[in-house]
Amino acid sequence: MKKIKIRKAKKSDKKNILRLVNELAGFENLSPPDKKAQGRLIRDAFSSNPPYNILLAEYEGQTAGYSFYFFTYSSFLARRSLYLEDIYVSEKFRNLGIGKMFFNKLINIAEKNKCARMEWVVLDWNVNAIKFYEKLNAFELKEWKTFRKLIKSD
Amino acid sequence: MKKIKIRKAKKSDKKNILRLVNELAGFENLSPPDKKAQGRLIRDAFSSNPPYNILLAEYEGQTAGYSFYFFTYSSFLARRSLYLEDIYVSEKFRNLGIGKMFFNKLINIAEKNKCARMEWVVLDWNVNAIKFYEKLNAFELKEWKTFRKLIKSD
Repeated sequence: MKKIKIRKAKKSDKKNILRLVNELAGFENLSPPDKKAQGRLIRDAFSSNPPYNILLAEYEGQTAGYSFYFFTYSSFLARRSLYLEDIYVSEKFRNLGIGKMFFNKLINIAEKNKCARMEWVVLDWNVNAIKFYEKLNAFELKEWKTFRKLIKSD
Repeated sequence: MKKIKIRKAKKSDKKNILRLVNELAGFENLSPPDKKAQGRLIRDAFSSNPPYNILLAEYEGQTAGYSFYFFTYSSFLARRSLYLEDIYVSEKFRNLGIGKMFFNKLINIAEKNKCARMEWVVLDWNVNAIKFYEKLNAFELKEWKTFRKLIKSD
């Protein structure tokens, strides 16, 4: 496992981050973020008060995947939660244990920040991911429905 | 509508906030937060870097309901989202337009913060709430499943 390293992203990782973001969009059958959104994504991540954090996986020095996360809050438990916004491992680096290493690192960050929960969403057709999450002792919140309202912003 | 006022909570609202939090737990058939969690909830809300924000509704000077919210981030849009963690209007103050006024205020806050979305969850049996959300042009995210992993913290 020594070949794999999980570390915080630096601004100089910009190109590799955006390359993988575009790959994930393709995998999810979504159109990738446009140029403006890509610019905001990098600017936000390396701003003074970043709205989200980036972890990168390196395999023998190559950028193999990323996780984006931030903290939310459970009023019921009065504790922060770690919310995993994205996790992606590039195709040729799969089945090497990188996903598991990301989760171990994220669980560790959640513990250090006194979180009571870690949460994320998955597309219903992504059966491989769902199986992986169930092996991690995660469970689906079946009784809650998620609603979204679009906001007009400039 | 002049009788209703939506405003930020102050520390002196503590008792009214906790009374309504306990009411909501009863309404959702959940056990209310224990004393320690109630202490953290208030301490967190009025800390120097609060993990969530509280809006209160007043009706003729009485505390009638609350909303808890914070900001999340959509990597796909590279924009913040406003996440509505809780919205509650006490039984005797329902059907007065308070829920709608909360949403108007929250949409306004989301716009000011350049959010692209507002999101929240609802229990699947809460048909009245779901009808209300649909009238606001919100929609359910049916293709995404939410997963949770519990974290051991002290």
